[in-house]
Amino acid sequence: MSTVGKVIKCKAAIAWEAGNPFSIEEVEVAPPKEHEIRVKIVATGVCRTDAHAVSLSFKEGLFPVILGHEGAGIVESTGPGVTTFKPGDKVIPLYVPQCGQCKFCLNPKTNLCEKISKIKTPISDQDLMPDGTSRFTCKGKQIYHFMGTSTFSEYTVVAETSLVKIDAAAPLDKVCLMGCGFSTGYGSALNTAKVEPGSTCAVFGLGGVGLSAVIGCKAAGASRIFAIDINNNKFSLAKQLGATDCLNPQDFKKPIQEVITEMSNGGVDFAIECVGNVAVMKAALECIMVGWGTCTIVGVAPGGQSIPVSPMQLIMGKKINATFFGGWKSVDSIPKLVSDYMGKKFNLDALVTYTLPFDKINDAFDLMYEGKSIRTVLVF
Amino acid sequence: MSTVGKVIKCKAAIAWEAGNPFSIEEVEVAPPKEHEIRVKIVATGVCRTDAHAVSLSFKEGLFPVILGHEGAGIVESTGPGVTTFKPGDKVIPLYVPQCGQCKFCLNPKTNLCEKISKIKTPISDQDLMPDGTSRFTCKGKQIYHFMGTSTFSEYTVVAETSLVKIDAAAPLDKVCLMGCGFSTGYGSALNTAKVEPGSTCAVFGLGGVGLSAVIGCKAAGASRIFAIDINNNKFSLAKQLGATDCLNPQDFKKPIQEVITEMSNGGVDFAIECVGNVAVMKAALECIMVGWGTCTIVGVAPGGQSIPVSPMQLIMGKKINATFFGGWKSVDSIPKLVSDYMGKKFNLDALVTYTLPFDKINDAFDLMYEGKSIRTVLVF
Ligand SMILES: [Zn+2]
Ligand SMILES: [Zn+2]
Ligand SMILES: [Zn+2]
Ligand SMILES: [Zn+2]
Repeated sequence: MSTVGKVIKCKAAIAWEAGNPFSIEEVEVAPPKEHEIRVKIVATGVCRTDAHAVSLSFKEGLFPVILGHEGAGIVESTGPGVTTFKPGDKVIPLYVPQCGQCKFCLNPKTNLCEKISKIKTPISDQDLMPDGTSRFTCKGKQIYHFMGTSTFSEYTVVAETSLVKIDAAAPLDKVCLMGCGFSTGYGSALNTAKVEPGSTCAVFGLGGVGLSAVIGCKAAGASRIFAIDINNNKFSLAKQLGATDCLNPQDFKKPIQEVITEMSNGGVDFAIECVGNVAVMKAALECIMVGWGTCTIVGVAPGGQSIPVSPMQLIMGKKINATFFGGWKSVDSIPKLVSDYMGKKFNLDALVTYTLPFDKINDAFDLMYEGKSIRTVLVF
Repeated sequence: MSTVGKVIKCKAAIAWEAGNPFSIEEVEVAPPKEHEIRVKIVATGVCRTDAHAVSLSFKEGLFPVILGHEGAGIVESTGPGVTTFKPGDKVIPLYVPQCGQCKFCLNPKTNLCEKISKIKTPISDQDLMPDGTSRFTCKGKQIYHFMGTSTFSEYTVVAETSLVKIDAAAPLDKVCLMGCGFSTGYGSALNTAKVEPGSTCAVFGLGGVGLSAVIGCKAAGASRIFAIDINNNKFSLAKQLGATDCLNPQDFKKPIQEVITEMSNGGVDFAIECVGNVAVMKAALECIMVGWGTCTIVGVAPGGQSIPVSPMQLIMGKKINATFFGGWKSVDSIPKLVSDYMGKKFNLDALVTYTLPFDKINDAFDLMYEGKSIRTVLVF
């Protein structure tokens, strides 16, 4: 019996309020409205941004909410006016939309899109559908969307500009990482830092994003890649993915930036910060070469902390920038990244350390908090 | 009677200690040693960096010292091993050397040179000749050099890598500004901000450097140039040089960055800060367009204050950088800038609001402190 045009009752993980575990609930998912698509989510990663959104320190969170922004699935049905998707298409929901028509989409220098209506913070946005309403209800209550994706639900509804079709042969329990972590880290090296062949790089933080940055540095032809983490367990995988020197700051008496500066004969060409810690950002900025070194920020500092940038560092030619979804224009780029993965240009599978049934979502978060996972993928 | 190989006694302005006026004194200038050149200074500008170096708040200053870093002159004699200069050459001393051989000089991304030995701060460096001694004495005391140039002396000695030959027809009382202010401001727009044709720009601070940045924005083809200063007297010259909208923050109730953002439909493409004030830097960063706006810092904040940069601003694609001598590789670029001036590509003369005899050096500083001059040139 077709579900098209009908409310679907299915399983979802609801965050009823900040600071509590997710509850697996039965939710009602309304049919897609104009220029919307209902997607059956097959697999979803869990990411620190989801954890951030339910943390007690994040004041902007709206509850109850269905989180999740690193998913992959199959189109179930399409709303009126949708011409570019049809039921059965394999798709990845996009928290960075690409409408293709706004001044941002038309400018090659940025991957922002005006469809993120506020363009202030990417996290606190897209908590309802573009028409200002929700497609989710549970126990009679409206449930907020999250980042326009809400992949922690067996079915979700997304805007047509927040979805991209991918290769029908792609394994969704792997390429779901294209929805956030892999694309962000890999693109931070290729698009934002613009790592060059023969260059020296330092990647701070070896979670899924940091290791994806290592993959990106390697793909860009870096000749030396320092990989820095306080957890030695990350090092074997980092080396497998291309790191040449794995450093644990706790093994040195002097600050790690001094160690790297000495080992790299004055500083690295590119440093990529994937921790989201202001002190680490400072270290990353300090370990790059004067004259031309670039420091790329990938991690978001909690509580909107600022990075203290000395004008003298900038005058001496150090560059600092930050990535948003790895700088990829999402609709244009994700299918190509999936093709590159299918062509074995990089090892995405190595990043998936656990694959768990969706009901184990709280275990997946615990593995992340405890530093035991790189990426856990939940499957329905 | 030739002075070659002999000590020259001549006039110089000595800063005996911080916070006091300059003293015009007779100094002894030793002959140039190996790879050094003695230059008869014909004209020199006065710049805020000189004022900074004698201010009580600048702790790194060495005294007594002969300041001045924006001069032009004629080669008097050359030391052993000098092959690229001869007596009579018109020259500009360079506080940014270009040795042509170090890793910085060989890298097109930077105009730094290892001959600035410390590469920490450009100001506190080059206070003695490369061999660690001074060529200046006065009343039996050794006098420090400054920035490798010391143009506040009728004769000075500079390293061969800190000098460039220019067109013999160039008027030294104008092109001396190529030694610092003009090159810095003009290059900040062309080389550091990389202003694009048809773009919108905002230049904060309309002193000699800021107005040179306006000239640079205009030369790069900007279609709209906001010029911001709290002194309305700067506006007629700013308009003459290319500014389209002159704004005094004191005329508005809302912060000037909001005014500019509204007038520019969301933000300017390029903002150039030529004040050296952290609050103004913040305003400059706020008035640029998300996605691709670039904020270029030209002014140096006193006391090494940091700019509080929000990672979210960087994530949203705002860029921040800073200029050092306008990004020009000095030896390569200054002769071309002089040629462009001779070919009337820009109006340098308009920046010289006063030309005074060298003895009036303290008056020149007063005119600067009082905001009455754009640039005062002192002539011997
Ligand atoms: Zn994420
Ligand atoms: Zn768009
Ligand atoms: Zn200067
Ligand atoms: Zn050099």
